[in-house]
Amino acid sequence: MTLAVRYTAARTLDTAPSQASPPGPGQVELAPAYVGICGTDLHIFHGDMDARVHTPAVLGHEMSGRVERVGPGVEDWRPGDAVTVMPLRWDDSCPACQVGHQHICQHLDFIGIDSPGAMQQRWTVPASTLVRLPDSLPLDRGALVEPTAVAVHDVGRAGVRGGEKVVVVGGGPVGVLIALVAQATGAEVRLVELSAHRRRLAQELGLTVWNPADDYVPALVRQWTEDAGADVAFEVSGAAGGVDTAVDVLGVRGRLCLVAIHPRPREINLHRFFWRELTLVGARLYDRSDFERAVTLVADGTIPADRLISKVVPLTQAPAAFEALEGGGDVMKILLDCTDRTDDAQGAAV
Amino acid sequence: MTLAVRYTAARTLDTAPSQASPPGPGQVELAPAYVGICGTDLHIFHGDMDARVHTPAVLGHEMSGRVERVGPGVEDWRPGDAVTVMPLRWDDSCPACQVGHQHICQHLDFIGIDSPGAMQQRWTVPASTLVRLPDSLPLDRGALVEPTAVAVHDVGRAGVRGGEKVVVVGGGPVGVLIALVAQATGAEVRLVELSAHRRRLAQELGLTVWNPADDYVPALVRQWTEDAGADVAFEVSGAAGGVDTAVDVLGVRGRLCLVAIHPRPREINLHRFFWRELTLVGARLYDRSDFERAVTLVADGTIPADRLISKVVPLTQAPAAFEALEGGGDVMKILLDCTDRTDDAQGAAV
Ligand SMILES: NC(=O)c1ccc[n+]([C@@H]2O[C@H](COP(=O)([O-])OP(=O)(O)OC[C@H]3O[C@@H](n4cnc5c(N)ncnc54)[C@H](O)[C@@H]3O)[C@@H](O)[C@H]2O)c1
Ligand SMILES: NC(=O)c1ccc[n+]([C@@H]2O[C@H](COP(=O)([O-])OP(=O)(O)OC[C@H]3O[C@@H](n4cnc5c(N)ncnc54)[C@H](O)[C@@H]3O)[C@@H](O)[C@H]2O)c1
Ligand SMILES: [Zn+2]
Ligand SMILES: [Zn+2]
Repeated sequence: MTLAVRYTAARTLDTAPSQASPPGPGQVELAPAYVGICGTDLHIFHGDMDARVHTPAVLGHEMSGRVERVGPGVEDWRPGDAVTVMPLRWDDSCPACQVGHQHICQHLDFIGIDSPGAMQQRWTVPASTLVRLPDSLPLDRGALVEPTAVAVHDVGRAGVRGGEKVVVVGGGPVGVLIALVAQATGAEVRLVELSAHRRRLAQELGLTVWNPADDYVPALVRQWTEDAGADVAFEVSGAAGGVDTAVDVLGVRGRLCLVAIHPRPREINLHRFFWRELTLVGARLYDRSDFERAVTLVADGTIPADRLISKVVPLTQAPAAFEALEGGGDVMKILLDCTDRTDDAQGAAV
Repeated sequence: MTLAVRYTAARTLDTAPSQASPPGPGQVELAPAYVGICGTDLHIFHGDMDARVHTPAVLGHEMSGRVERVGPGVEDWRPGDAVTVMPLRWDDSCPACQVGHQHICQHLDFIGIDSPGAMQQRWTVPASTLVRLPDSLPLDRGALVEPTAVAVHDVGRAGVRGGEKVVVVGGGPVGVLIALVAQATGAEVRLVELSAHRRRLAQELGLTVWNPADDYVPALVRQWTEDAGADVAFEVSGAAGGVDTAVDVLGVRGRLCLVAIHPRPREINLHRFFWRELTLVGARLYDRSDFERAVTLVADGTIPADRLISKVVPLTQAPAAFEALEGGGDVMKILLDCTDRTDDAQGAAV
């Protein structure tokens, strides 16, 4: 008997037994090891995405694990292989797919939101979504590949080049990963973050960090860049104030990469876009090349994934983990351990 | 005795005699022939730019004319040469200039706003600002080169390619010119404009035009593009509704070129920028290569400049011309004729 965590209604998760059926043609059954909880999972937990999510819904799209069984016709994978999943399925026929942008397919199935995700002990996915993890990589770190792929994609969309001056607004998991990837690309980076805990952690990782509550960030940037302004800004805070900061720090022809999700329209200083010939670039998800580069960056330690993991809790304690993250507090990334069957272990000890 | 039209206070223009001093080293004295009135001139007339404009101010930056006298050291120009002026002076030392974007110099002197413009019968400018007009080009059409250079720059900033589907929102002089330049680049173009007069004129010029008051433009675009959305949109209306239209018509990875000036912040649907990976590109003014291409397009008739000129009035009637444009009404471009001295002629006839 295996377990699944399911979102059933706003602020409610339950744990239910799940029955795995054998993988079909082209499918692979995985045994998830670690699953990260991300901001989108929290949005779903709040009930903000009930129009899109069909309950009961198994969440989770940041994961690592091993192949358990392969379905007919699957040749490249065998039981025990360490993998992560690029959780996208596209229709290959819409206008986006036709021009090669499958990751923004107009009928995208985001696995873990639109269809069942990884917060369970057995998970069947198309073999085409698998991405190999090196055997040397501890599986907990492997769960950080997906958000790292987001960061790789974003740094690419912004066209960051070596020597450029980059401001990242928002130092949650995604912002910190963007800062690290941009730095690895040779850029000079400043991270702007409100939470003292997250600022401290980012500093320990070698990033230079500013507190927007202490200083007026555009003035710091003018000083830093000798009045030129930054080449690139990333908006990764999701806050209105973060958007303003990202616009205000840019120099002539500066590029603002929009990563955060802003459900409602935001007021933007368009005059500055005209006056300085700024560019705003939306960035969403990733493609396979982003994922593969993310595996490399996590595996070679460029991304110190272990340092970003604040806590690992058993799958069955998902509700408490969601609530901890929701309260903000002193955490970066929380992983659910799907292999840890606390209940069974306790049972055995009795 | 020569005349100058001067902005002295909100809604007030006077005509004053002006005394030309001989051009200094590197300078050229021009006899302006025709000067267009543009939206920025109207903003100044309204008093909206009093913080920037030093009164009494001679306006005018869309012009054609002939060289009258050249100052010491000027070798390439001689009296009688037909010219237009690229009305920019930069400091060559700020961060923008250092990276080759002189047209958005952080200390730009826009001649005709920040320093005296062309609405006078003699005008002294640096020889470096002159752009040669072919002798075969009637001078009234030459006054359309400057706004055409804006359009060339904008189409370049948006990276319009042949075969792309382009929506231009706002069919004033600048919007129509952008539509014509984009069409000449091989794009399929739709122009969106509220005024019936301007729609009719644009249609006569061979453009396909939509009325946003009659139809929901994003729906028309979905039909036109078989659900893909447009590749490029230009926001040239200056209106909040125009911004929404420009965002809503774009397909995946669509580019929105922001041409219009929005003095106040606008609400933008950032979620759509994220979801479709849209790009917003600010565009301001032009550089010399844009100007030279504009001369070619006006001279070879690709831009039917004569059709865009609604009216030509004597320089001394500038106040009435500003009021006519201000009232909206059935006009596209109004030119002031600086060579036409109605008063003198009348005097001579008595
Ligand atoms: N584009 C994509 O494909 C993609 C993928 C994953 C996540 N996201 C989005 O990226 C954003 C960041 O994700 P995350 O998981 O790091 O979220 P998060 O909420 O953990 O991090 C946001 C951080 O911004 C900080 N912040 C808030 N206001 C700020 C301000 N004014 N200035 C500076 N910092 C400020 C917060 O303290 C927080 O640490 C979210 O909006 C998420 O939905 C987008
Ligand atoms: N980027 C630059 O360097 C540059 C240079 C010149 C002008 N401009 C700006 O470009 C804009 C256009 O210049 P113009 O001289 O053509 O101005 P204009 O005011 O004559 O034209 C704007 C047109 O937009 C139309 N319009 C208004 N709301 C609309 C809507 N919701 N949908 C469709 N059409 C709508 C109006 O009817 C009008 O014809 C102005 O904001 C001007 O300041 C920018
Ligand atoms: Zn598709
Ligand atoms: Zn400069």
